[in-house]
Amino acid sequence: VENGCLIIKSPIKPDKNVRKKGEDIKKGDIILNKNTRLTPENISLLSSCNIKKIKVYEKIPVSIISTGNEIMDFNSSPKYGKIYNSNGILAENFLLQNGCDVLNNAICKDDLKEIKETLSYAAKISKIIITSAGASFGDKDYTGKALESVGFKIKFRQVAIKPAKPFSFGLINKKIPVFMLPGNPLAFYTCLAVFVKPFINRHIKINSRMRIIKSKSAFEYIKSNKRREFIPAHTFYKDGSVYSEIYKKSGPAMISSLGYMNSLVSIPENVSAVVKEDLLDTYLI
Amino acid sequence: VENGCLIIKSPIKPDKNVRKKGEDIKKGDIILNKNTRLTPENISLLSSCNIKKIKVYEKIPVSIISTGNEIMDFNSSPKYGKIYNSNGILAENFLLQNGCDVLNNAICKDDLKEIKETLSYAAKISKIIITSAGASFGDKDYTGKALESVGFKIKFRQVAIKPAKPFSFGLINKKIPVFMLPGNPLAFYTCLAVFVKPFINRHIKINSRMRIIKSKSAFEYIKSNKRREFIPAHTFYKDGSVYSEIYKKSGPAMISSLGYMNSLVSIPENVSAVVKEDLLDTYLI
Repeated sequence: VENGCLIIKSPIKPDKNVRKKGEDIKKGDIILNKNTRLTPENISLLSSCNIKKIKVYEKIPVSIISTGNEIMDFNSSPKYGKIYNSNGILAENFLLQNGCDVLNNAICKDDLKEIKETLSYAAKISKIIITSAGASFGDKDYTGKALESVGFKIKFRQVAIKPAKPFSFGLINKKIPVFMLPGNPLAFYTCLAVFVKPFINRHIKINSRMRIIKSKSAFEYIKSNKRREFIPAHTFYKDGSVYSEIYKKSGPAMISSLGYMNSLVSIPENVSAVVKEDLLDTYLI
Repeated sequence: VENGCLIIKSPIKPDKNVRKKGEDIKKGDIILNKNTRLTPENISLLSSCNIKKIKVYEKIPVSIISTGNEIMDFNSSPKYGKIYNSNGILAENFLLQNGCDVLNNAICKDDLKEIKETLSYAAKISKIIITSAGASFGDKDYTGKALESVGFKIKFRQVAIKPAKPFSFGLINKKIPVFMLPGNPLAFYTCLAVFVKPFINRHIKINSRMRIIKSKSAFEYIKSNKRREFIPAHTFYKDGSVYSEIYKKSGPAMISSLGYMNSLVSIPENVSAVVKEDLLDTYLI
C-alpha cells in the first residue's frame, strides 16, 4: 500500500496456493493395496484419511529346533568341545523381524526320541518349523528319521548353491512346511535369507523388503565350483557408485562375517572368477 | 567292511570336517565395531561368543510440534476446511524407527502464545525438536517468532531442493537442534528422510541404513527448475536390472504417493530432463 493505493507488483497465478477438494485423493480411490507392509509412510497416509482400523495378518507361529550334542544354551558356562546356540538366536530375531511369532526355540541332543517329541509338539503349535543341523540322511542324522515319524514327506534334498547345499524341504501331514537347515552358521544364515524369508513373505502375501540391487565388485574372487555362491558382503555408496566388498574369512562355519555384512552378493553358476568392477546381484539385508 | 576287511575307497583330506580352535574368532579379536546397529545377524554373533551384555545408546528424546489452525487431531470428526495431523503421525512413527523416543507430539493453533508455551516445554524435555509448518518468516508465521523467544538462533533458511525448499534449521540455547519443516506432506516427508534421518544417525553415531543405490529410470520427466529434486518412486528388480518408476501425482501437497513409494529418486541440479534408462541416485526407504 502506497499513498492509500494498493499496488500489485506481480500477477497472481490462478489457483496458486489453493488446494482443491479431492485433488489428491477422491472418494472411492484405492490408497493402499492389499498386502502392503505398514510403514510410517503408509500409517501417515491412512491417518490423513482418518482410517483408524485396518485388517492385518496374524503373526505366523513358528518353532525352531536346533539339534546337536555340541549345542549349549546361552545361559550355560563355556565347555570344551561345545558351542553356543547362535543359530537358534539368529533365527528367532530374524523371524521376529519378518512377521513371525517364535513359540518354541528348542535345543535337542542327537537323540531320536528327544527330537521326535520336540517335533511332535512343534507340529501341533506351529505353521512353519525350522530345524538346524542333522539334516543329512546318514545313520546319525536323526532329524530326518524323527520327521518321518510325525508324518513328514520330503519335497527336495539339497540345493545347488554354496554354502547352503545341504538345505532340504518337506511337509508334515501335507501342510506344515519344514525347512531343514544346515548347522554351519553361514550356511544356516544364507538359507534364512534366500529361502525362508521369501517363503514367509509369500505366505503372508506381503511384498518382500529383501531388495536385490546391482553393485560393483570391490574384490577379486576365484569360484572353484559350478554352484551359485552367496558371499557375505558390505555394500556401500562412494563417489556416485555402489560397491560391495567381501569379508576375508568366508568358510561356511565362519560366523564372524555376520558382524561385517549388510548384504549377500550372488555369483552365478557359470562364472568362475570375479574381477574388480564386475556388476553383481546383491541382496540387501 | 567286506570279508572282515575295512576297505577305504577314497583318501581323506587332512583336516576335512575338522574345525580348529580359534580358526574364526581368536581371543582379542574385534567382532563388532563401536556404533553398530544391533541386527539379528549381530546378536547371533554376540551370542556365539556368549556376550550377554553390551552398552547401547539411549534413545533420543524428541518433541514434534505441528502448527496450523487447519490441523485436527486424529480423534476429531471431519470438518470442512480442516485436515488431519498426518505429519505428526508420520514423524512419530518415522522417528520411533530411527532410535528416538517421541515424548511429545503436539498440535498448536496459529497462536504465538500457544506455540511459545509448547516450545518452551519441548526445549526442557527434548534433545531434538521437529516443527511442522509456519516456518516461513512472514507476519503470520509464528513458529520463528516463538522460537526466538526461547533462545533460538537460526543457522540457515531454505534449501535449494524441491519439494523441501522452505526447510530451515537452528539451535535453541546453542544446543537443541530445531528442524523447521514445511507443512506440505511430501515436503515434510522429504525433509525427514533427507535431513533429519542422517542427522540422527550421526548424532547417535550409528551407520545409516538409508541406502543410496543406482536405479534405471522407468519414466520420463521434465524438470522445470535449477534445484535438486527428490521424487517418490517405486524401485524394483526385473530381468537383472534395478528400475524406479514414479507416481503420477507428485505435487508437494500430495500425500497419496506415500502409499506407493519405497524410495526417493534424486534428480541433480544440472539435469533438466530424465529419459528412460537414465541412471539415477535412489534413496531406499
